[in-house]
Amino acid sequence: MSTTTLQVPEVKNYIGGKFTNGTKKSMDIVSPLDGATIANVPLSTMAELNSAVEAAQAAFKTWSSTPIKERVQIFYRYKTLMEKNLKELAALVQKENGKTLDEAIAEVEKSIELTEYACSMPQLVAGKIMEVSRGVECRLDHKPVGVVASIAPFNFPHMVPHWTIPNALVLGNCMILKPSEKVPVSSMRIAEMLKEAGLPDGVFNVVNGDREIVEAICDHPGIQAVSFVGSTKIAKVVYIRSTSNLKRCLALGGAKNHLIVMPDAHPDMTASNVTASMSGCAGQRCMAASAMVGVGNIDHIISKICDEAKKVIPGKNLGAVISKESKERIERYITEAEKAGAKILVDGRNTTVAGMENGYYVGPTVIDFVTPDMAIAKEEVFGPVIAIMRASSIDEALSIENGSAYGNAASVFTQSGSIARQVMEKASAGMIGINIGVPVPREPFSFGGWNDSKFGVGDITGDSSIEFWTNLKKTSIKWNPEAKTNWMS
Amino acid sequence: MSTTTLQVPEVKNYIGGKFTNGTKKSMDIVSPLDGATIANVPLSTMAELNSAVEAAQAAFKTWSSTPIKERVQIFYRYKTLMEKNLKELAALVQKENGKTLDEAIAEVEKSIELTEYACSMPQLVAGKIMEVSRGVECRLDHKPVGVVASIAPFNFPHMVPHWTIPNALVLGNCMILKPSEKVPVSSMRIAEMLKEAGLPDGVFNVVNGDREIVEAICDHPGIQAVSFVGSTKIAKVVYIRSTSNLKRCLALGGAKNHLIVMPDAHPDMTASNVTASMSGCAGQRCMAASAMVGVGNIDHIISKICDEAKKVIPGKNLGAVISKESKERIERYITEAEKAGAKILVDGRNTTVAGMENGYYVGPTVIDFVTPDMAIAKEEVFGPVIAIMRASSIDEALSIENGSAYGNAASVFTQSGSIARQVMEKASAGMIGINIGVPVPREPFSFGGWNDSKFGVGDITGDSSIEFWTNLKKTSIKWNPEAKTNWMS
Amino acid sequence: MSTTTLQVPEVKNYIGGKFTNGTKKSMDIVSPLDGATIANVPLSTMAELNSAVEAAQAAFKTWSSTPIKERVQIFYRYKTLMEKNLKELAALVQKENGKTLDEAIAEVEKSIELTEYACSMPQLVAGKIMEVSRGVECRLDHKPVGVVASIAPFNFPHMVPHWTIPNALVLGNCMILKPSEKVPVSSMRIAEMLKEAGLPDGVFNVVNGDREIVEAICDHPGIQAVSFVGSTKIAKVVYIRSTSNLKRCLALGGAKNHLIVMPDAHPDMTASNVTASMSGCAGQRCMAASAMVGVGNIDHIISKICDEAKKVIPGKNLGAVISKESKERIERYITEAEKAGAKILVDGRNTTVAGMENGYYVGPTVIDFVTPDMAIAKEEVFGPVIAIMRASSIDEALSIENGSAYGNAASVFTQSGSIARQVMEKASAGMIGINIGVPVPREPFSFGGWNDSKFGVGDITGDSSIEFWTNLKKTSIKWNPEAKTNWMS
Amino acid sequence: MSTTTLQVPEVKNYIGGKFTNGTKKSMDIVSPLDGATIANVPLSTMAELNSAVEAAQAAFKTWSSTPIKERVQIFYRYKTLMEKNLKELAALVQKENGKTLDEAIAEVEKSIELTEYACSMPQLVAGKIMEVSRGVECRLDHKPVGVVASIAPFNFPHMVPHWTIPNALVLGNCMILKPSEKVPVSSMRIAEMLKEAGLPDGVFNVVNGDREIVEAICDHPGIQAVSFVGSTKIAKVVYIRSTSNLKRCLALGGAKNHLIVMPDAHPDMTASNVTASMSGCAGQRCMAASAMVGVGNIDHIISKICDEAKKVIPGKNLGAVISKESKERIERYITEAEKAGAKILVDGRNTTVAGMENGYYVGPTVIDFVTPDMAIAKEEVFGPVIAIMRASSIDEALSIENGSAYGNAASVFTQSGSIARQVMEKASAGMIGINIGVPVPREPFSFGGWNDSKFGVGDITGDSSIEFWTNLKKTSIKWNPEAKTNWMS
Repeated sequence: MSTTTLQVPEVKNYIGGKFTNGTKKSMDIVSPLDGATIANVPLSTMAELNSAVEAAQAAFKTWSSTPIKERVQIFYRYKTLMEKNLKELAALVQKENGKTLDEAIAEVEKSIELTEYACSMPQLVAGKIMEVSRGVECRLDHKPVGVVASIAPFNFPHMVPHWTIPNALVLGNCMILKPSEKVPVSSMRIAEMLKEAGLPDGVFNVVNGDREIVEAICDHPGIQAVSFVGSTKIAKVVYIRSTSNLKRCLALGGAKNHLIVMPDAHPDMTASNVTASMSGCAGQRCMAASAMVGVGNIDHIISKICDEAKKVIPGKNLGAVISKESKERIERYITEAEKAGAKILVDGRNTTVAGMENGYYVGPTVIDFVTPDMAIAKEEVFGPVIAIMRASSIDEALSIENGSAYGNAASVFTQSGSIARQVMEKASAGMIGINIGVPVPREPFSFGGWNDSKFGVGDITGDSSIEFWTNLKKTSIKWNPEAKTNWMS
Repeated sequence: MSTTTLQVPEVKNYIGGKFTNGTKKSMDIVSPLDGATIANVPLSTMAELNSAVEAAQAAFKTWSSTPIKERVQIFYRYKTLMEKNLKELAALVQKENGKTLDEAIAEVEKSIELTEYACSMPQLVAGKIMEVSRGVECRLDHKPVGVVASIAPFNFPHMVPHWTIPNALVLGNCMILKPSEKVPVSSMRIAEMLKEAGLPDGVFNVVNGDREIVEAICDHPGIQAVSFVGSTKIAKVVYIRSTSNLKRCLALGGAKNHLIVMPDAHPDMTASNVTASMSGCAGQRCMAASAMVGVGNIDHIISKICDEAKKVIPGKNLGAVISKESKERIERYITEAEKAGAKILVDGRNTTVAGMENGYYVGPTVIDFVTPDMAIAKEEVFGPVIAIMRASSIDEALSIENGSAYGNAASVFTQSGSIARQVMEKASAGMIGINIGVPVPREPFSFGGWNDSKFGVGDITGDSSIEFWTNLKKTSIKWNPEAKTNWMS
Repeated sequence: MSTTTLQVPEVKNYIGGKFTNGTKKSMDIVSPLDGATIANVPLSTMAELNSAVEAAQAAFKTWSSTPIKERVQIFYRYKTLMEKNLKELAALVQKENGKTLDEAIAEVEKSIELTEYACSMPQLVAGKIMEVSRGVECRLDHKPVGVVASIAPFNFPHMVPHWTIPNALVLGNCMILKPSEKVPVSSMRIAEMLKEAGLPDGVFNVVNGDREIVEAICDHPGIQAVSFVGSTKIAKVVYIRSTSNLKRCLALGGAKNHLIVMPDAHPDMTASNVTASMSGCAGQRCMAASAMVGVGNIDHIISKICDEAKKVIPGKNLGAVISKESKERIERYITEAEKAGAKILVDGRNTTVAGMENGYYVGPTVIDFVTPDMAIAKEEVFGPVIAIMRASSIDEALSIENGSAYGNAASVFTQSGSIARQVMEKASAGMIGINIGVPVPREPFSFGGWNDSKFGVGDITGDSSIEFWTNLKKTSIKWNPEAKTNWMS
Repeated sequence: MSTTTLQVPEVKNYIGGKFTNGTKKSMDIVSPLDGATIANVPLSTMAELNSAVEAAQAAFKTWSSTPIKERVQIFYRYKTLMEKNLKELAALVQKENGKTLDEAIAEVEKSIELTEYACSMPQLVAGKIMEVSRGVECRLDHKPVGVVASIAPFNFPHMVPHWTIPNALVLGNCMILKPSEKVPVSSMRIAEMLKEAGLPDGVFNVVNGDREIVEAICDHPGIQAVSFVGSTKIAKVVYIRSTSNLKRCLALGGAKNHLIVMPDAHPDMTASNVTASMSGCAGQRCMAASAMVGVGNIDHIISKICDEAKKVIPGKNLGAVISKESKERIERYITEAEKAGAKILVDGRNTTVAGMENGYYVGPTVIDFVTPDMAIAKEEVFGPVIAIMRASSIDEALSIENGSAYGNAASVFTQSGSIARQVMEKASAGMIGINIGVPVPREPFSFGGWNDSKFGVGDITGDSSIEFWTNLKKTSIKWNPEAKTNWMS
């Protein structure tokens, strides 16, 4: 995990094609790997948001009337650039976020896949046309909505921005990205590389900041649509505040994803998948599996999960969590569960990594005999921790899953087609896994949860996102049928 | 216009398959045709909304798990029932709303078309499935959102409810309809006929009332989605209040639709179409053409429009407006325009219909030399009135159109393919007409405006509505590939 | 099974909206139920085909330019008519084909479902339009191909014609139907009811006859497309002869469908499903299961299959086979298998039904220990007979299935998701069943086999059929951008 | 036009990833630019076709089971390679075909666009899945057909192979390409670059040859699908011979494309477009405009066309025709038209280019007062020649267009929306232009003519091609609903 030689650029805003910094307030950025300060991020003010919106509005006229087949060419080139710079982009993600290099590479690869989807857009957004009555035709076209905003979280500094950038831009919108103030560096490189790929100035802008800028985005009359990814608490605030300004809004929040493990599950496949699902990205993903419900006797599988968990080594194949506060919060959840009677099978508390003693590490943690009423069973822990509950039937397991306020993901491990289908039908979650613990849909399947995991209509990626980023224009056409027939006279 | 023998049923709520009335407050319903009281409508309270939501929730489990191919059969039968009872349904619409019988027939015919679209749903909502990586499949399904509400306006007592009922129900949702308290009678018949068609109790419910119930719907935690059609003022309130409760909402508001008339327009076709567009349904439609911009010399066309307008006779081929207040408001707009310097070419003020002296009639009104700053040029008049402005170029005409806060519809009359395309591209409206003054999209093309004419994502009818009425469930599937191969041992 | 009071109409051709009979040759139609002659069928000549083509061509101009939203209305009415006359239509099918009344009802219900799909067509065939470069738009429309022909087999006198009629006609084509000369009566009723539903004369025509007319259809220069359903032998002839005349052709042939039964299969569900799959419609369907491959020890399931088979009673819940020749052929296959070493577990030979002694009945027959090289394992038997082979692994079972020259359907019975997926992936057949022995796709999923079970591109029903029945018209549009801008001068 | 330094590689077959030459027969390849021999092409025998089919079959198993998201990555890289080598690829096209460098560049750019479409395929070919009745799901998947063949013509040595290669391969098929024996060099480079992009050996193969190999392809039992582009005469032969072998076939033939010019057409835009349409690629494209019908008085436009034609200079902005025979045939058509009474306004006969005296050049030729019965009005000339006919009405013009046996393209030049729509509706051609003389659809709109310009179902590019290159697999799924519920016991 030696990324020390990596150059971390100075963080600025990116407005109208230029990196600028008009604000005096700023905040330190610390690498979770070793606690070292690596950069500082400007905390922008309304004035800078105004500049960005103006730049976006100015660019919109030309960009929105550029044929989509031209717009996608920029993203074909951008994909190639990301592929060429994959390692460097991943190293940057690792540095500011703390995840492992392999996880960071996988993250950037997902950005590439999201960009490929956007490159396909000319094949996906053709309008419709039909004769609907004698001599009358109807047609329907998708038109960009205008200036849009995307607010991103800390856990995927590169990927989550790509949930929105390629689709929104290819569809003709201009965007203001507000990265997490904890991981603003990757967005700098995104801006640079989009420019290198040929994106006209003003089409994409980055405004750094914290809560003040988030609120300003929700309120700004020049912004037509707001997308947000973060905690449920803030997702609610953003959804309500944006829509109160009559905007459209899609706000993705947190999660408490359940894995239902059946006794007929394939033991090895299940154990390695469950472990990866709970510990990947140090559990800091909204798709992390943090609750497991064992149905019947699954002790043999739990035993294998513990074996697998012990192979997950902080600083090696397990990254850091984002901050000291985060580490403390995760450990507090474990300790409280223990006090409440749960049994810690594998304990990740009090972990340090040699040579990175100031980094924020929590080891993989497996807790059995958790009950549904414990905090660790209900709340989002966002750490490499799995809380195991026990049930005697599928219905009981589903009832635990259904009881969650969230609804991002739910999985089942089984070899039975019938049980798989029952869970798929009855789990109250937007993303279901059959023998897959982190059922992130690949493109063109869209990403999005249910219940308190998402507010708004539709999903943020895939075909569903097209509607969010466009307005529908319907045209009815009739021509005078008695046109002149003899042109000789 | 003899509908006097028509039986007007007592207006009640319809909850869980039963007509009930648990409220003491009520309001008189007056027929605009002759000012006579024809019924009275209960003003429901929270208790009745609660009952309706409970009935809907109770029905949801069975209804949502009924295969869609079974659900549509009810709507096939319902279509046939509407066809069989077309005249009676239209007479009811005429009675409570005041429009002509022909207009009422056309309205119910549109309800039928909307129902046909919903019958096609099994062909439209199949999920997707694909192998996305070795041994891993992704699939996507559309699932109903739950209990939904539809709030309807007075101008289309039968059609607007059908913008939402067939699609929402066929997709597996249960609904609470809140009709306009001015025209609640048609909804009674809708409920009866859906039941006759075989719809299970509780799937569709009607709760009558006014503002109090609208607010209660926005707030009710048991309702997942709210659709609204009415004025922009109330649309904003409903959008903000529903989304503040974290619901999804689609709210359609008012309009100020512009007709751009070019000098190369076909004179007869244009004149008759413009006149129908402004006077149809007495101008009480959000698609009514109430502003016209003539480009260049179009005096010969205006002259023909006046001729056509004079053939539109109140009480014969022109219906009543909804209320005394409405009549007064419309006439006030005309008078103020006159005072401001506009020229009344055809004057519909002070109109009475022999034998129906207490009805609310305004004659067709053509006003020339209106300027864009007059109230009549900017505000929604909702009467059979057209305000003509003059421009010297397409760009000037489009600039007037673009200046409107609304964006429901805009049309151009021309014989030129180039001009038609320019207006289609540049008008800032959701629905565009080429030589069509009321460009209501036919199914499957969706209905919906832009700007202050609609709040939310997507459209209320057509393919776009599918996303509004469903949640997307994404499933990732992997099976243990090393299944036992020798079954003899 | 008392259908004796049923009126069987005189069989004629139906040309240009009139029932006519211009031929002298005819053939007796015998009911398989009791061997009684019920009608006779004209064997038409070229002259009558010419008349039909001329009638169709004459009707094409108006029909093809009728908006599709009008065309579907006829089929909505037609659906209602079929529902109203369901019993009578089924009785007719039973009479001429010999199947049970329940089977005949299910057949007509499938005709209704196929018609519903066609009613959805306005939602499915809208063209596409998009700006493809600056100022240039492309659009694509589906246009009818012209006069088309549909040649139908004896086993589904009502349903198979509906595989083609509703879709082809709704899409704007005019059709000539050639029913099987063994079961021409149902087509008479189809013609009558389409006319009653409002179909214009000449759009649909019926020409009866045998091989001579089939060949004439393939050769006729006025027919653009030919669809055929029947035996593989004739399917090949029709495919080659039609395409040699430069027509498009889709020709569906016979089948040898395999059921793979795993030892983990649910015994009761499997036994009843297998039995129904082999004996339904007396095995006279191209989807009939006639070969079964048991993997591992499935003796307990075979035993249950035999129990189920014994509950299938000729003349009660098992219909007749189409002819004396057919009965003899089926019994010959059984006898030869027995001679070759197979074991007859349930024997349906030498069956008679009391009171219908001249009918053609074969009882349900279960044969175990068949080997893949026996004729009964390779050839289409078209009777209520199942030949059971044994295998020790999925791969061996799939290898038997893959070895068939046909490829209509293949099924697996298992509770394992992994095995189900393996069979779905690896079976070489167009239609796969997971725990379903007759995996006929419901609409909008299309019907069609692979290998020698179908010749041509795409499928005969569902979305795929749209391309077969239409030509694609692509239009590129550009308007002079420098249109006059100042209309005052 | 100096391409003399270009390295022309030795032409070989490409089988199983290797360039090989096992045949003794060969033929000289002459550059039309200057008549010089630039290479020779092997005339392969059955033995080599067999090797290629075997190589393709061997590759099919792995390739067809490679997930489509992996398959497309090769084509993303291939697109980048074509962009990097654009000039060299174009120079090669110019050398062997004789067209101008700009035309050759445009040709390769279209290859790139076709490849982009194929890269979008994961977004386009997802299967469908839906619950069709209680507990029963249907799904549909697209599966590759196997080994397919593509036979290409001389006029677009690089583009026409790309009509089929990217789509067929991305969809999982393995292909044998048979380039025109006149221009086999570009296909060598295609093979090299596909390999460089990572395509596994055997997936794509090239077999050179003439008629003998074409016939062998039609007959070979290991080839499942045949696509052909060339003359109508050979298209018919290939269609009949392939289908007689029970294959699917799509065969594109020649054309006689009509331009209808209205007196209201924009004179400059029309004249330059008409001239480019008839002289581009020296008229050697199936989309070339070779017949023009003037409606009413269009003398002023014809005069401008002549002016434009005179600016088209052989050897400068007009390329060579493919061969000496071709040049002679074109000149013969002109001379015969002259004899028959037509008037040669611009005469391109007897053209030579200084320094390239042995090249095959015909100058742009405008012929007025042609009548529909002249050979030049009916037959495909395939040279830079336009035959002008006169008509007094749109109907007369359309009747001339409709009279053609071909139906590739037809265009109208007008400013009227009404006339444009009439021509779009009534012209009997697969591709229509509104103010565009060569209405080649851009992706994703498909390419394909009507009548004698194409045999088979669907189009060769775009969405329609998906069905040609795949088989539909339909699966019906049911799981035992009574799965064990208490797992404790």
